[in-house]
Amino acid sequence: MTKLKMGMVGGGIGAFIGEVHRKAARMDGGVDVVAGAFDIDPEKSLAQGRNLGLDPRRVYRTYKDMIAGELALPKEEHIDFVAICTPNHTHFPIAKACLEAGFNVMCEKPMTLTADEAEELAAIVKKTKLTFGLMHTYTGYPMVKLARDMVRTGDIGKIRKVVVQYPQGWLFRLTGRENMQASWRTDPKRSGRSCAMGDIGTHAANLAEFVTGLRITEVLADLTTFVKGRRLDDDGSVLFHMEKGAKGILMATQIASGLENGLNIWVYGEAKTLFWKQEDPNCLHVLDQTAPEQIWRRGNAYVAAKSPSAARCTRTPSGHPEGFFEAFANNYVNFCDTIRARRAKRKPTALELDFPGIVDGVRGMRFINAVCDSSEQGNVWKKM
Amino acid sequence: MTKLKMGMVGGGIGAFIGEVHRKAARMDGGVDVVAGAFDIDPEKSLAQGRNLGLDPRRVYRTYKDMIAGELALPKEEHIDFVAICTPNHTHFPIAKACLEAGFNVMCEKPMTLTADEAEELAAIVKKTKLTFGLMHTYTGYPMVKLARDMVRTGDIGKIRKVVVQYPQGWLFRLTGRENMQASWRTDPKRSGRSCAMGDIGTHAANLAEFVTGLRITEVLADLTTFVKGRRLDDDGSVLFHMEKGAKGILMATQIASGLENGLNIWVYGEAKTLFWKQEDPNCLHVLDQTAPEQIWRRGNAYVAAKSPSAARCTRTPSGHPEGFFEAFANNYVNFCDTIRARRAKRKPTALELDFPGIVDGVRGMRFINAVCDSSEQGNVWKKM
Amino acid sequence: MTKLKMGMVGGGIGAFIGEVHRKAARMDGGVDVVAGAFDIDPEKSLAQGRNLGLDPRRVYRTYKDMIAGELALPKEEHIDFVAICTPNHTHFPIAKACLEAGFNVMCEKPMTLTADEAEELAAIVKKTKLTFGLMHTYTGYPMVKLARDMVRTGDIGKIRKVVVQYPQGWLFRLTGRENMQASWRTDPKRSGRSCAMGDIGTHAANLAEFVTGLRITEVLADLTTFVKGRRLDDDGSVLFHMEKGAKGILMATQIASGLENGLNIWVYGEAKTLFWKQEDPNCLHVLDQTAPEQIWRRGNAYVAAKSPSAARCTRTPSGHPEGFFEAFANNYVNFCDTIRARRAKRKPTALELDFPGIVDGVRGMRFINAVCDSSEQGNVWKKM
Amino acid sequence: MTKLKMGMVGGGIGAFIGEVHRKAARMDGGVDVVAGAFDIDPEKSLAQGRNLGLDPRRVYRTYKDMIAGELALPKEEHIDFVAICTPNHTHFPIAKACLEAGFNVMCEKPMTLTADEAEELAAIVKKTKLTFGLMHTYTGYPMVKLARDMVRTGDIGKIRKVVVQYPQGWLFRLTGRENMQASWRTDPKRSGRSCAMGDIGTHAANLAEFVTGLRITEVLADLTTFVKGRRLDDDGSVLFHMEKGAKGILMATQIASGLENGLNIWVYGEAKTLFWKQEDPNCLHVLDQTAPEQIWRRGNAYVAAKSPSAARCTRTPSGHPEGFFEAFANNYVNFCDTIRARRAKRKPTALELDFPGIVDGVRGMRFINAVCDSSEQGNVWKKM
Repeated sequence: MTKLKMGMVGGGIGAFIGEVHRKAARMDGGVDVVAGAFDIDPEKSLAQGRNLGLDPRRVYRTYKDMIAGELALPKEEHIDFVAICTPNHTHFPIAKACLEAGFNVMCEKPMTLTADEAEELAAIVKKTKLTFGLMHTYTGYPMVKLARDMVRTGDIGKIRKVVVQYPQGWLFRLTGRENMQASWRTDPKRSGRSCAMGDIGTHAANLAEFVTGLRITEVLADLTTFVKGRRLDDDGSVLFHMEKGAKGILMATQIASGLENGLNIWVYGEAKTLFWKQEDPNCLHVLDQTAPEQIWRRGNAYVAAKSPSAARCTRTPSGHPEGFFEAFANNYVNFCDTIRARRAKRKPTALELDFPGIVDGVRGMRFINAVCDSSEQGNVWKKM
Repeated sequence: MTKLKMGMVGGGIGAFIGEVHRKAARMDGGVDVVAGAFDIDPEKSLAQGRNLGLDPRRVYRTYKDMIAGELALPKEEHIDFVAICTPNHTHFPIAKACLEAGFNVMCEKPMTLTADEAEELAAIVKKTKLTFGLMHTYTGYPMVKLARDMVRTGDIGKIRKVVVQYPQGWLFRLTGRENMQASWRTDPKRSGRSCAMGDIGTHAANLAEFVTGLRITEVLADLTTFVKGRRLDDDGSVLFHMEKGAKGILMATQIASGLENGLNIWVYGEAKTLFWKQEDPNCLHVLDQTAPEQIWRRGNAYVAAKSPSAARCTRTPSGHPEGFFEAFANNYVNFCDTIRARRAKRKPTALELDFPGIVDGVRGMRFINAVCDSSEQGNVWKKM
Repeated sequence: MTKLKMGMVGGGIGAFIGEVHRKAARMDGGVDVVAGAFDIDPEKSLAQGRNLGLDPRRVYRTYKDMIAGELALPKEEHIDFVAICTPNHTHFPIAKACLEAGFNVMCEKPMTLTADEAEELAAIVKKTKLTFGLMHTYTGYPMVKLARDMVRTGDIGKIRKVVVQYPQGWLFRLTGRENMQASWRTDPKRSGRSCAMGDIGTHAANLAEFVTGLRITEVLADLTTFVKGRRLDDDGSVLFHMEKGAKGILMATQIASGLENGLNIWVYGEAKTLFWKQEDPNCLHVLDQTAPEQIWRRGNAYVAAKSPSAARCTRTPSGHPEGFFEAFANNYVNFCDTIRARRAKRKPTALELDFPGIVDGVRGMRFINAVCDSSEQGNVWKKM
Repeated sequence: MTKLKMGMVGGGIGAFIGEVHRKAARMDGGVDVVAGAFDIDPEKSLAQGRNLGLDPRRVYRTYKDMIAGELALPKEEHIDFVAICTPNHTHFPIAKACLEAGFNVMCEKPMTLTADEAEELAAIVKKTKLTFGLMHTYTGYPMVKLARDMVRTGDIGKIRKVVVQYPQGWLFRLTGRENMQASWRTDPKRSGRSCAMGDIGTHAANLAEFVTGLRITEVLADLTTFVKGRRLDDDGSVLFHMEKGAKGILMATQIASGLENGLNIWVYGEAKTLFWKQEDPNCLHVLDQTAPEQIWRRGNAYVAAKSPSAARCTRTPSGHPEGFFEAFANNYVNFCDTIRARRAKRKPTALELDFPGIVDGVRGMRFINAVCDSSEQGNVWKKM
């Protein structure tokens, strides 16, 4: 396995998601972090570079410097891809610049600040033919892949209804300037039109489309800012319609006191029902009106038999809990294997291509627009 | 404790809910079933009377006969109340006749076929000053009463959001003529405007109002008939607004394969969150962003300290599961104690009055109308 | 269905288990309580008789008076059976006297104070050919019957190991005179050689034998009195061997702070594993190294197909929780149907005979003796 | 943070635990794998070195070669420690040689093949003053550290009883030569006196001692080989006594069909009860006879307030599941920080020293001896 060289934008000292990217990318030994522009403060960026043991010449002041600096190196020393872990509003210009300079990109979500930016970025990806990953962590869980494969193979029957909820509690009160994580997420300039819907509603919508294989066609949303003084929604309820007559409910809230990261999904098919919950990620529940409930657990032969994609994304025997980092790392593994395949002039396999990307990003931005439009216009249906 | 004499309409051989009424009414030794018009077929009615060991003279052909027959007895031998366990469309005429003849009534839900009937019945109850109970079983569970009392005493903080779901699977397919239970429920003439919303959506709405102490002010519904050939909705998703700015989502479905009787409710307050699930009724979960989740369990001293109403409705020490029959019986206990208090010319206490009644019935019928109107008119807000 | 007439010994005002017997016996409409000697204080006995609406002539001062009084009635008015709900040390003389007077008996457990009494009682039952029930409540749960039937039909494979635990917390501290329930249970004169093992260890042993169909052959026990000042064991750990090479662990404790009535059992067979937990009685977990875990739930057609005995002991559709009273009532139903069959000179069916009785009682007393002997003699193996 | 250089013995291609060591050691960016003797087949060792991107000069034929080769390098290039991931019987000679050559050691468990070897190794560690870690993974979970800290600070009260169980199912049948993992574990020459007790019973005993802070003083064991043809125990039941009057039950089995890695522990104190389960590692249950059950979840401020050690071992916000790799990595973090502290001539803090080591290893070997002796000698108490 060729080691890939990763450059980072964002992920400075104390940043949560940047460190997750590093741990996840490194987990399976296929990626080295070799360059970065970690902070808008160059001193802090350098300090983070030192922490990470990087060659100081490859710790840059800005992403532009990083692009220039890396291009100045011999081609075989270049970074192979850039991980973008900055606040939402900077994703687009950074991703655009990286792609146009020829670098593959793994981007945090939501992909851009606006849907227009998302469409533009999609065009760039198409043109450059580079590999673009979007970090929808939760579809990286093997039991989510198993759920999708059960739907795909018809075990669940035609999908009738989906209920997807994402309750969190961390914004249940207004902190002075809210905490570091919260401050930019509730600032329209940096976060976009929505807080709860942008930050977690998009994950919920993405999960619903991923598992069912159906696209959401229209939404009707009721967004709320429950905490006084906050500038963006911290809660939303959404009815939605999908292709082929499926219907659904999406709930995303950040004011649910005591709820941690409670993403969960129910999928009701004509034959069976699926249930999965992020906080218990190694289990997939399969219910059936005519038979006992089943709990499928990661790492068993019966999972591998149904879902090679889930089997590929498992590292330990059953009963050894895998979690958030592994889900994250699964996206990196497939993203990197796709890069390797293309390097080798080989068409990536379906298993390798099983990571979220530009299409998910565009749909996420359209989702945000549609739910915000719906809510602002009086809770009416909006096409997506 | 004076034994009360109960007459039944409905509850013939093989009928599910009638037998539940008998078991529940009898559970605590305060009620005897002494009369009944159990079936529209007089032979079957008589057979059921024999099963129950009744005096054959008090097994009647029709409810009208029962009213007449009982009134013909010496006053002290009269039945004290009538339990109405017939299909929906007959609740109103029977209840009306019983009340007008001077009998207290315990009625199955939904209370009537239309909202107009409900309003009329409310007027009759008001005029007659008789005791009227409506069998919303689920608010009879002690942990639901505890939840309400936690909200009332301010532990949960101002309510922001409620998510109440009632998934069932028993109508996930169309059976030849559907089964006995299902056939009348999916027949508009006998069931009213709605199947899923009338049968279980009303329970969900009632539970949300009961626990929060807030009324639903308006609804926006998306009802569906997923099973081809069925004449009424078997699924519905509802957004709702409550008094004091609370918002909510209600889901009721009967096509959720493998789900049994999965009523559950999340209540998100400014301070804490409550979760309760009908299939695990002896537990109430209390979540808090700043402290460990708590599981309160029926039968403990700490429950009694917070909710005398819950304590009153508990029969066994903690750890001895109480279930559906006990919830049902709790409604009977309070209903009967209210009758006894009024007999004794005493104002019933708040604890005695803690059973669902005419107000819940009127609201239930308005709820059905509002969600049906909303859905038929294109998913628009309808006042309730 | 012929109504049976029940007399009670014990079950005075405020007594827990006597009221459970009444509720359970009455639940399905086949039993009337018509006589009783409810309390050693005749005034209190009379008061309880009044509460229950009994004919005062059939409220007796002592069980001896009850026997005499009932025998003096015309034969067709006699009580059909006696329910014995008194402290342990009185079970034997009462049961003996009732049987010898010709009355069937339903007895609380443990059956007697000593194993010798148990053997003597067994001889009397054999001689009189009367119906004798012993209230091992927990084998009355339908999912326990299903578990047994899965073992019987070979689904689980040859049994290798059983782990049965019964943790409770209610004796975790010494109360002044302990509470009413506790005081006699921790008094050797009234409770016998053991508190924890007699009160709940016997339930655990009975459950293990019931589900596996194997008898415990020998035990090695380590009993403890953790709470200073208590006179009997409040905790015990037991290794045991069963027929056909199966082995097991039994734990019963009453000092497990916060545990309520946590009886649970794991059965490990050559093919599959079973798990059942009293506090979640409507579920039976079936685990299999080669397939997803299954959760079987009471009230479904797939349960009835595997266990007619479980199906017979279910009153509500799946998802409507049944609990402790129903388990209790199931034992009464089968006990009473056996009495009815014998009255009708018909051999009771296997389904009717599916209730705990004299054999269970003898084994329970032997179990207590064996574990007490083992513990007193230095934790050595004792045959049972 | 100084990066430490790790050498490995074992962990060849396809080996499970070696790869876990690498992932865990690397997780937080403080360790590089730079050398190894990965396989007894030198070609395979080289291949694994290539996979890992190592300098081929540092991929050795044997651990002796590795020691010699590393010592031949300039001191600042030496590996800082050796991770030993080979079958049980080789742990001792390798660990001994490494320590005597001056290398710190992280060793898989059980530490040695015999208790004598364990004592000898302890003497060497003492003499060399080097840092020795033993990979008892499960005490690396933050909620296990929280449990220990709750006991330490008196929240639970004096410990009365401990029930620790470790059920697995992967050896429920004999495979032809059993699978790769199983073959050496069931071979006395490579695995030692015990399979189930050595492999997982030691984890259970270690967990019980870790959480309670009490040592097991004596054991009484009943070991069994349920699967015909297997040469070592695949199941065991153990009664044990601890310091200060605590008692316990330990169960470890590998024939529990469908159980995966079900290590769990109940700790019953005079005030409260603790429950933790490896397959749901982010939760710690605290039960209390006088208050609702609490579920403490990793990553919350209330956990950090009670247990700085747990807080130090958490990488993501609450609700983002951490699992097996993170527990493993926590042991590496503290082990490495202890090495760093000693390098810096600083006394390691209690937080840094919070990893399992030589004392745990010696106790583990004594445990194996004691349970095997007890079982062989007829289930008698054996001092530990």
